[in-house]
Amino acid sequence: MPPRERRHGLLIVNTGDGKGKSTAGFGVLLRAWGRGMTVGGFQFVKSAVNPYGEHLAAHAMGFELTPLGDGFTWLSEDLSADRRLAEEGWARCREALAEGRFDVLLLDELTYPLNYGWLDLSQVLADLTARPPGTHVIVTGRDAPPALIEAADLVTEMRVVKHPYREQGIGAQPGIEL
Amino acid sequence: MPPRERRHGLLIVNTGDGKGKSTAGFGVLLRAWGRGMTVGGFQFVKSAVNPYGEHLAAHAMGFELTPLGDGFTWLSEDLSADRRLAEEGWARCREALAEGRFDVLLLDELTYPLNYGWLDLSQVLADLTARPPGTHVIVTGRDAPPALIEAADLVTEMRVVKHPYREQGIGAQPGIEL
Repeated sequence: MPPRERRHGLLIVNTGDGKGKSTAGFGVLLRAWGRGMTVGGFQFVKSAVNPYGEHLAAHAMGFELTPLGDGFTWLSEDLSADRRLAEEGWARCREALAEGRFDVLLLDELTYPLNYGWLDLSQVLADLTARPPGTHVIVTGRDAPPALIEAADLVTEMRVVKHPYREQGIGAQPGIEL
Repeated sequence: MPPRERRHGLLIVNTGDGKGKSTAGFGVLLRAWGRGMTVGGFQFVKSAVNPYGEHLAAHAMGFELTPLGDGFTWLSEDLSADRRLAEEGWARCREALAEGRFDVLLLDELTYPLNYGWLDLSQVLADLTARPPGTHVIVTGRDAPPALIEAADLVTEMRVVKHPYREQGIGAQPGIEL
């Protein structure tokens, strides 16, 4: 592995309405973890109540994957609480970035608090830009804001071609989607 | 985890010209592995010469990830050798499926030998259809054939929005892409 100062830290964005945005983020964490890099993630929508497959894997593999949400945007009846949760969450992300705690950091579903206006986009972009050289960041979520796309090095749109849940009424399969 | 006979085994296809097709496949393996499922993968293009981050991770996590290729389609000067490699590779996949060795199996970059005509599409689809109930399969690669898309439960197209290698001339970053 090249030392951090010789790496080109990428800002990667996975967006679109299709599946695989977060999942590809976990795939990057797997690959980087395999190379001995320090990986981690913060999840802006997932709550800590029910562990998903990725949390069980992170625990077994020994990396940090922190759900910041309370299932907000779907469960909350108090929007100011959602905003506060999002802001507190971003403060943790900013600190982790500034400290250089991770070689690769996943910011899962960050687009939602940005699009709801709970986080200030220009502040988030400034914090991302100020991260230590060689730090790779992956942002996921639908409807990535244009300024985030502009700032990114690599942007992929995941587009639905066929979706079993919509078309066949099949429920979420444990281990695949959750 | 529901027992295999109560799961709906999905055939998932990640296609398109963008990044994240294989990477999302590895993300599914991570998630399913976290839930204690038996996961594995065969890779149709990767050779065994240089281990990628995903191979190091698979070794550390204790699951099988088998490169079947010899870097074919890029390195070989003998097309009949490529075809033979692909056919031998598929025989191993078919056997693994038929034996029910995996709850979740990644068939990475399978579309290439299909599109080059090295594997018989109708035979591959028949083998996939004959897999034990509850077995999830993920197929990746560009230009998924229409009959494969037709047979699949979930199809996502990864579309390039921005790509650093093309636009900025940045080399592949270890741990992220390889």
